[in-house]
Amino acid sequence: MSRPTVGVALLGLGTVGQGVWKHLTAQRGDLEARLGVRLDIRGVAVRRRARARGVKVPSRLLTTDARRLVDDPRSGVIIELIGGVTVARTLVLRALRAGKTVITANKALLCEHGPEVLAAAKAGGGRLFLEGSVGGGIPIVKTLREGLVANRFDLIVGIVNGTSNYILTRMGEDGLSFDAALEEARRKGYAEADPSLDVDGVDAWHKAAILGFLAHGKWAPRSRALVEGIRKVSPADIGFARKFGYTLKHLAVVRRDLRAGWMSVGVYPALVPSGDILAKVSGVNNGITLRGDVVGVTTLAGPGAGADATASAVLGDLADALLEIRGGARPGADLHALAKAGRSVPMAPEEAIVSPFYLRLTLKDTHGVLAGIYRTFARHKVSIARVVQYEHPDTGTGTLTLSTYPGNERDMARVVAELARLRTVLEPPTLLRIFAP
Amino acid sequence: MSRPTVGVALLGLGTVGQGVWKHLTAQRGDLEARLGVRLDIRGVAVRRRARARGVKVPSRLLTTDARRLVDDPRSGVIIELIGGVTVARTLVLRALRAGKTVITANKALLCEHGPEVLAAAKAGGGRLFLEGSVGGGIPIVKTLREGLVANRFDLIVGIVNGTSNYILTRMGEDGLSFDAALEEARRKGYAEADPSLDVDGVDAWHKAAILGFLAHGKWAPRSRALVEGIRKVSPADIGFARKFGYTLKHLAVVRRDLRAGWMSVGVYPALVPSGDILAKVSGVNNGITLRGDVVGVTTLAGPGAGADATASAVLGDLADALLEIRGGARPGADLHALAKAGRSVPMAPEEAIVSPFYLRLTLKDTHGVLAGIYRTFARHKVSIARVVQYEHPDTGTGTLTLSTYPGNERDMARVVAELARLRTVLEPPTLLRIFAP
Repeated sequence: MSRPTVGVALLGLGTVGQGVWKHLTAQRGDLEARLGVRLDIRGVAVRRRARARGVKVPSRLLTTDARRLVDDPRSGVIIELIGGVTVARTLVLRALRAGKTVITANKALLCEHGPEVLAAAKAGGGRLFLEGSVGGGIPIVKTLREGLVANRFDLIVGIVNGTSNYILTRMGEDGLSFDAALEEARRKGYAEADPSLDVDGVDAWHKAAILGFLAHGKWAPRSRALVEGIRKVSPADIGFARKFGYTLKHLAVVRRDLRAGWMSVGVYPALVPSGDILAKVSGVNNGITLRGDVVGVTTLAGPGAGADATASAVLGDLADALLEIRGGARPGADLHALAKAGRSVPMAPEEAIVSPFYLRLTLKDTHGVLAGIYRTFARHKVSIARVVQYEHPDTGTGTLTLSTYPGNERDMARVVAELARLRTVLEPPTLLRIFAP
Repeated sequence: MSRPTVGVALLGLGTVGQGVWKHLTAQRGDLEARLGVRLDIRGVAVRRRARARGVKVPSRLLTTDARRLVDDPRSGVIIELIGGVTVARTLVLRALRAGKTVITANKALLCEHGPEVLAAAKAGGGRLFLEGSVGGGIPIVKTLREGLVANRFDLIVGIVNGTSNYILTRMGEDGLSFDAALEEARRKGYAEADPSLDVDGVDAWHKAAILGFLAHGKWAPRSRALVEGIRKVSPADIGFARKFGYTLKHLAVVRRDLRAGWMSVGVYPALVPSGDILAKVSGVNNGITLRGDVVGVTTLAGPGAGADATASAVLGDLADALLEIRGGARPGADLHALAKAGRSVPMAPEEAIVSPFYLRLTLKDTHGVLAGIYRTFARHKVSIARVVQYEHPDTGTGTLTLSTYPGNERDMARVVAELARLRTVLEPPTLLRIFAP
C-alpha cells in the first residue's frame, strides 16, 4: 500500500511555532509510520527571514509570503501560529474557503470571529482543529468533544491563564505584591511587556468563550459576560480568603442550566475552597473541571502555555487531521501497531527501579541496637535521610521510622531481609516507597 | 443520505451494564443524530432473566444465550460488561474472530489475556475499544493514544483503585483503622463482599498493566512487577508520613527509561508529597499523572468507578466505534453540527447567575456605620454569612470583610452600587465571587 503524501505549511515561527517545528521534525518518521502518510513540509511563513531563532529551519523553506504558502495547491494542512486577528484571520479564512485543513492555537481569532471562521470552513469544505487554543497541553477539546461525548455539561470551571495563576500563586504563597509578582512573571518570560491580555482577563475570556462553544455550540457575547482580571486583587483579599478556608484563583466559568437551557460564561477572580483540586493548580499550570450528567466531575490539569505544551496539542491535532485525510481507523485505536512496537521493550532490572524508601521497625529496645541497623544500611549502600524514634517504656519496645535517600529495589530488599533476621527486630519491617517523580 | 443501521448487543446487566443501558437508551436519539447512524439494540445477555434490577429492559430483549447474541449476523458491536476471564473471554474472542467491534471494560481479561485478545482481533479483523477498563470516567485511553500522541511517556503514575483510595482517605483524614474503613466502604457499596481484588492491589495491577501496554505496547508480566495492596498500611504509617510531609496513597507506577528502553510497572502503597496534585485525589476518585517528553506533566482526575462513570467511558467508545463503521469525519470535530445545535441556546439572565460573594469595604470608622451597611444588604435580600472587622486606630479607618450566602449578580450589583455611595465607605468596594460548584 502506497502512502499518500500530505503537504503541511507552517505559518508563524514565534515561541509556539518554534516548538511545533522542533517536535514535528524530531518525530516526523514516527508520525509518518504511525499514520501511514508521508509529510511534505511546504514552507514556514515568517515576518522576517533573518532573525535569531531557537530552531534551525532550512532557508529554502522560509518565506515571507504566507499567502503563497496557503495558496500552494500542495499545502493540504495549514498550521496557523501567527496569532492575532488581522493577518491570521485573512489567511485562515482563505485556507478554509479553499477546502484546506487548518490547525490553529489562535484563541483571539476563534473567540472574536468564530462564526465567520466556521462559515468559511462550511463554504469551502475546510476542516478546523483547535486543541492548542485552550488549556495548553491539556487535551481538553478532545475530552469535551470525544471522550466525554455522552455527557451534557452543566459546569465547566477552570484556571485557563497561566500568567494570572502564576501571579496569584506568588502573591498567595509568598506574600508578593501584585506589581512585584507581575515583574517576576515578566522576568521569567511568563508575561508580555504589555501584560493586559493576561491580567485583565482578556486571554481567559477568549478561552472561556471557546469552552462555551465547544460544550454548547454558542459563542457567548462579551456584552453578556462578566470579564474581570486580577489587578484589583490585593494581598489583603488573599489573606482573608485563606482565613475563610479559600484560595484565590482567576477562574473561567461556563454554566448551563440543563432544564432552563441558558448558558453563562464569565471570567473573574474567585475564592475557591482550599480542598478543591483547582486550589492546588499552581504556578503557570492550567486546570479545568468538567461536570457531566453521566460521568460526574472530572478534572484535567497540566502546563497551560509555552512552546512545548502547545506543540503537543498542535501535533495531536495534526495526527487527527492526517488521519482524516488518509481515512480509515484512528491511530490511537490501532493496538496491533502498538503491540508490534512493544515487542522490543524489556522489563527493568531490579537495580534500575529506584526510589526513596520509608521503613518502620519495631525494636526490642532501642538501646544499643541502632548501630547494628545502621551497619546493615551501610553494607548495602543505602543512605538514611531522616530518623524518628519512639520509646514505649511500658513494654520495653521502641518504634524506629526512617526515610532513605533514593536506593534501588534489590539493595533495599537485601537491607530489609537482613534487618528482619536481627533478634532485636520484633516484627516484620514495614517497607513503603516514597514517590519521587 | 440514508443512515446505516448498526446492531448493538449488550452482554451483562450488572452495575455497569445497567448504567450503560440507562444512558444509552436516554441518549439514543442524540447519539444517532450526532453520528448519522441508526442503532438497533439486538439484545441484552443476562445470567438470569428474572431478577430485580434498577433498570427496565423490555423482556423481548433479555436473553440468557449470550453466544447467540454474539453470533447474530446483525450484531456489529458487542459491549462486554460481564467481567471475569471465563465466559467473557470466550465471547470476546468469538466476536473479534468474527470481525465484530468489541467494547469492553474488562481489565482482568485485558491484563491476563491481552495478547490472545489482540491476536483474535487481528485474525478476524475485529476492533477493540477499552476506555472503560481503566480510570473509570476519565478518558485516559483517548488522552494517551490520541490527545498526547506526540509524546513518549517516561512516567505514568496514578491512583487507579477507588476502593483502596477511599479506605486510605478515611484512615488518613478521619483516623479510622483499616478494618473500620473497609467495613464502611463495604456498607457504602464501594467494596465487594470479598475485597481482596481491591485491597490486595490486583485490580490496580490489571489497570497498571493496561496503562503500560497503552503507553509502550508491552504487557508487563506479573512476575516482574511489585504488586502490593494496602493491608499492611497502619495508621502509624499514615501519621509518620504526614509528619514527613507526605500523604499515603496506593499508586500504580509505569516508568520507561527513554534512553535504555526498559519499562517497569508496579502497584504499591507509597508516600506522595502532600503538595502533589495526586495527594488531593480523595475518596473513590481516581487520578492519573502522565509525564510526556513534549507536553510535560498532565494530570487527569475524576470518578474512578461506578455505573455512571464507566457508562460515560463505554458510550464514548461506542461513539468512536460507530464512527469507524460509518466512516468519515470524527463527530467531535464536527463543529458545524455543534454550532447548529447552539443556535437555540440563550444567555443566562443576571438573576440566574448565583454565587456566594466576598466583599471588602474600607470604612471611615466602623462606629455606628454597620447598621447602614446591613440595611443595604437586607433591602436587596442578600444575606450575610460571615463578617470580619479590623480597626486601624491610627488612621481612624476600618476594614470590613464579609462573605454572603448565595445571591444573584443583579441584586449584588445593586448592593455594591448603594454601598459605594455611602459617605462612610472610603474606597470602591472590592467584590469577589466565591466559587461554589
